[in-house]
Amino acid sequence: MIILLKQNANPKQVDNLKNWLTDSGYSLHESQGSHHSIIGLIGDTSRLDIDLISSLDVVEAVRRIQEPYKSANRKFHEDDTVISVGDAKIGGGHFMMIAGPCSVETEEQITCVAKAVKKSGANMLRGGAFKPRTSPYAFQGLHGKGIDLLLKAKKQSGLPIITEIMDINHLPLFENVDVIQVGARNMQNFELLKELGQTRKPILLKRGLANTIEELLMSAEYIMAGGNENIILCERGIRTFETATRNTMDLSAVPVLHKLSHLPVVVDPSHGTGIRDLVKPMALAAAAAGADGLIVEVHNDPVHALCDGKQSLTPEQFDDLAHAIRAILPHCIREAKW
Amino acid sequence: MIILLKQNANPKQVDNLKNWLTDSGYSLHESQGSHHSIIGLIGDTSRLDIDLISSLDVVEAVRRIQEPYKSANRKFHEDDTVISVGDAKIGGGHFMMIAGPCSVETEEQITCVAKAVKKSGANMLRGGAFKPRTSPYAFQGLHGKGIDLLLKAKKQSGLPIITEIMDINHLPLFENVDVIQVGARNMQNFELLKELGQTRKPILLKRGLANTIEELLMSAEYIMAGGNENIILCERGIRTFETATRNTMDLSAVPVLHKLSHLPVVVDPSHGTGIRDLVKPMALAAAAAGADGLIVEVHNDPVHALCDGKQSLTPEQFDDLAHAIRAILPHCIREAKW
Amino acid sequence: MIILLKQNANPKQVDNLKNWLTDSGYSLHESQGSHHSIIGLIGDTSRLDIDLISSLDVVEAVRRIQEPYKSANRKFHEDDTVISVGDAKIGGGHFMMIAGPCSVETEEQITCVAKAVKKSGANMLRGGAFKPRTSPYAFQGLHGKGIDLLLKAKKQSGLPIITEIMDINHLPLFENVDVIQVGARNMQNFELLKELGQTRKPILLKRGLANTIEELLMSAEYIMAGGNENIILCERGIRTFETATRNTMDLSAVPVLHKLSHLPVVVDPSHGTGIRDLVKPMALAAAAAGADGLIVEVHNDPVHALCDGKQSLTPEQFDDLAHAIRAILPHCIREAKW
Amino acid sequence: MIILLKQNANPKQVDNLKNWLTDSGYSLHESQGSHHSIIGLIGDTSRLDIDLISSLDVVEAVRRIQEPYKSANRKFHEDDTVISVGDAKIGGGHFMMIAGPCSVETEEQITCVAKAVKKSGANMLRGGAFKPRTSPYAFQGLHGKGIDLLLKAKKQSGLPIITEIMDINHLPLFENVDVIQVGARNMQNFELLKELGQTRKPILLKRGLANTIEELLMSAEYIMAGGNENIILCERGIRTFETATRNTMDLSAVPVLHKLSHLPVVVDPSHGTGIRDLVKPMALAAAAAGADGLIVEVHNDPVHALCDGKQSLTPEQFDDLAHAIRAILPHCIREAKW
Repeated sequence: MIILLKQNANPKQVDNLKNWLTDSGYSLHESQGSHHSIIGLIGDTSRLDIDLISSLDVVEAVRRIQEPYKSANRKFHEDDTVISVGDAKIGGGHFMMIAGPCSVETEEQITCVAKAVKKSGANMLRGGAFKPRTSPYAFQGLHGKGIDLLLKAKKQSGLPIITEIMDINHLPLFENVDVIQVGARNMQNFELLKELGQTRKPILLKRGLANTIEELLMSAEYIMAGGNENIILCERGIRTFETATRNTMDLSAVPVLHKLSHLPVVVDPSHGTGIRDLVKPMALAAAAAGADGLIVEVHNDPVHALCDGKQSLTPEQFDDLAHAIRAILPHCIREAKW
Repeated sequence: MIILLKQNANPKQVDNLKNWLTDSGYSLHESQGSHHSIIGLIGDTSRLDIDLISSLDVVEAVRRIQEPYKSANRKFHEDDTVISVGDAKIGGGHFMMIAGPCSVETEEQITCVAKAVKKSGANMLRGGAFKPRTSPYAFQGLHGKGIDLLLKAKKQSGLPIITEIMDINHLPLFENVDVIQVGARNMQNFELLKELGQTRKPILLKRGLANTIEELLMSAEYIMAGGNENIILCERGIRTFETATRNTMDLSAVPVLHKLSHLPVVVDPSHGTGIRDLVKPMALAAAAAGADGLIVEVHNDPVHALCDGKQSLTPEQFDDLAHAIRAILPHCIREAKW
Repeated sequence: MIILLKQNANPKQVDNLKNWLTDSGYSLHESQGSHHSIIGLIGDTSRLDIDLISSLDVVEAVRRIQEPYKSANRKFHEDDTVISVGDAKIGGGHFMMIAGPCSVETEEQITCVAKAVKKSGANMLRGGAFKPRTSPYAFQGLHGKGIDLLLKAKKQSGLPIITEIMDINHLPLFENVDVIQVGARNMQNFELLKELGQTRKPILLKRGLANTIEELLMSAEYIMAGGNENIILCERGIRTFETATRNTMDLSAVPVLHKLSHLPVVVDPSHGTGIRDLVKPMALAAAAAGADGLIVEVHNDPVHALCDGKQSLTPEQFDDLAHAIRAILPHCIREAKW
Repeated sequence: MIILLKQNANPKQVDNLKNWLTDSGYSLHESQGSHHSIIGLIGDTSRLDIDLISSLDVVEAVRRIQEPYKSANRKFHEDDTVISVGDAKIGGGHFMMIAGPCSVETEEQITCVAKAVKKSGANMLRGGAFKPRTSPYAFQGLHGKGIDLLLKAKKQSGLPIITEIMDINHLPLFENVDVIQVGARNMQNFELLKELGQTRKPILLKRGLANTIEELLMSAEYIMAGGNENIILCERGIRTFETATRNTMDLSAVPVLHKLSHLPVVVDPSHGTGIRDLVKPMALAAAAAGADGLIVEVHNDPVHALCDGKQSLTPEQFDDLAHAIRAILPHCIREAKW
């Protein structure tokens, strides 16, 4: 970390700062520019409060050199993390295809979709039991009953299941869920992240609509700091001025995340675009850019889906997508097997 | 709501749609453009799922005409909502000044700040006991002990208190808190909003970093749908490409919210800018634009604040701000008394 | 176009509006909702000023149904536009690879790069003679001399050339340039677009940093309205809050543009990311999403490039990229030959 | 400027870099952190190409310490710049009110508006002769004839005039125009800026929709580098995800610009919001935040304005605004006389 002192900084206050830093265990390296004095800190600054230093009267600016995350940082964990869920794996060359309806609606619906997507090669079944909806008047999911239906579909299809948690009090309901999803709106629900750090279940952590890649890694760090290192990162689009799509998919995030972190990265082209016709091209693009997996909405009857039908594929469309992904995978930036 | 049908839409499917809409209780008004057929829906469409309709094969686009919020809508509640907290009021011409440190640190600190800001005319004391921090390694607040210290400061100063809730399980700790704050990162923590709808305490609801004004009102609607109508809306800056300030304050949100809703609106120039020198000009600007109140960070020793010191005022700076606000209030867009 | 009237709109003013619309040649279709009256306009509204109508006292809102662009609209031009440049083609299944340095520096540099990229299969040579730089103190390009050097490289390599225009007064210098590039900062330099509409040279039109897909098509429309229909659209990243990359590449724009327009679309992963390591993954992703071509920065000595070296590939890296693109093309969303 | 070297950087390449920097006239100050070596550059780095250094293989990151602008920098020009236009002044405590229609339409219109706004105290008349319109089919202004009409209105009212330039070839038409406006879309039309740097006329430079405050100052620097130091900066809203307003006004830019630069700052609440009802509250807010002036759209018959009528005030509304501004000015952050 580099601390840039103000011109004409009070020398006594500068001394106080230097003493405090030395007392905190840092070695200091000072240098004098034409306009500013600079203090370089040597030591682990990840636990140092950058805002505190910035606020001092004698400080003009503070620049971090090291990333503020440790456990999620590839510098300290060179090899790709591989996460196993049932028979399936993700990361380190293993591609995972997650598919299923936006919401669990009926046993018939979820079982039917589960069997269909399994036939096309999906490794995991998704389905929302708790649904975050902007309007309090919109359908909010079947809650516990939705999870029961997912578990039935798991039994019938043999697919592991993933579903979203919205409240830490619901955690006991997730006992037999294979992967817990943290949605974009909860990416910085830090109390929830801390609790999930106490479990050992794989967590699929979605990037928030207005969150940077670094903030996504800091949220992963929250979970990992509790001891749970099974994190799957998910790019699902960010909010920009563009209105032609529901969100703007930031596919650059895939290679950037692979550079910065060892954690696997999946992409959600369904929420990322919000438009059925864009799911296939963007799924192919995500794979090409090196995604370790996809999470795709599939509904047996999109016309009557209770939510997000606009972006769901039919089982036939999903099967077509699965074929296209199989064909493109050997030519993508990361060699992945599926 | 207006439904635009696709050119060459299958007539049978169109009939199905029309029957379903009629069965759902809407009157239909059809018209024929040069390129498209249009169905106008007459009836209360706030409970209708716009995504569902948009997803239908025969539908090109759907346009809402009415706002999707009811309880928060000025159309159905013409007069300004006035909320009383202790002796203080906000809304309908009553201006409220909320001040205090980012975090509660010690009894001495919070009591000292409480007395100082009261002397300058503040009507409420703020102070964080639970702190949402991007890094798991940063100071997270004193939790229950922080609330205890706030209550002591309330007793000593006579000021009502406001503090942020981060987890619904902490609600019992807030029994004697006067106003509960929902932070920007929790604006769409819908489970939390629903629970707060069951209380009757005033809620200060902060706009999320990437949330539209309409989404802020929808989150207010979540709380109001539970029966709690005591909502104070708060503009605190949104996330944009500009990096000169921590966030970009969207002061237009103040007159827009007043047009759309009867709820009072406060502005947070401390988090909105993240820079001490900008707090006063932006506080004056907020008042000028019609804000019903301000929430300002004040610390007796900003240099040693445990978080966000960069944007905290000293008690002397706050006193200067308070004088400036008193002087400008009679000339602002809304006449407000303080 | 649908005009929504205000509740309690003055009937006389409404009559004035309706007469004016009828006089302007539109047929009207009126309907009555529970809260609002609605007027539907039948006729070509692309020349109607939406702001004018919106500003009327009796009007609550105006909604366009048709896109405001005609010549660039796939609805009126079903087949893909194919543009020929020398022996190369782009669009309608023809993939074009454009490569070369950010700036033309010396004859040796540009000739050497031209030969190298041709050997790897590039169909066109890029190189900046006029450089838009944020700072007036940065290198601004060799201007006319740069174009001369490009022409020499064209002669030696046989590759057609593309270079950016920044001022309409420079147009005579572009006489032997094959494709004229309009940069992101000039996408809405409407006077420039109008002049280019008078030429018949192919124009590569880059999307502006803060411009929507619709605005890109409107800028294409400016050129096409002058009679020049040889437009290649280019996605090169938009400006968002994310700072890990120089811009945020909006690859969804590729399939969206293909849906809305018949014009070919190329992607610029060099400026889109600003980081050398991201060029290959994002180039593959662009191809996967259906791009009709790529424009890539290649420099024989990136370390000494006068500008943008950070994102330039070496000829060896470009050759590797070219092989990867050839391998992936048969598996992309659009079958394209290169 | 601080250069952070990569771990394990090739020592020979590092030496090359250091020699090159020394040859370029910089003194170097090296220091060794626990993970990185750091080189501090001492000397004027504003002419150094940050991208070039960043691109080197041995460089991890480069951090600027000094602002890249000189002439526009308050550090080198402590006192506020005061610009005189006719009898009016702006900056350094002088407030300027600019008003007039979006477009010049007829002699009667512009003369009538000029007299009305003068009566209310406006110091300058605005009116567009060249109009940048997104659609090629929308009204584009009266061009030379519009400037003639403005000059007539100037003669009749005694008000100096300001109008927008869109093409450097039109400059001769602006001979008798008092202030030349550069619109948001041309903020980075660098060829235009350079030419305007050769004139000595005051330039009102509007911030681009996606441009940072620093980029605005760099564009001012382009003009000032040519010798023209009469620059008025203008905040007119940036593009964000919010759709309730046409743009998001970034009023924090006012105090930030005053801190960084000595140039006067005006605010345009008409384009900044796009909605008539928001002009007054945001004009008051702009003044409160310290704006040195306002530029406001006024039309004698907004209902028939050829463009942007939605945001124009009537002369009566403008008169009301002028009174409100006079009343609030003594209580704003900067004491300004008008």
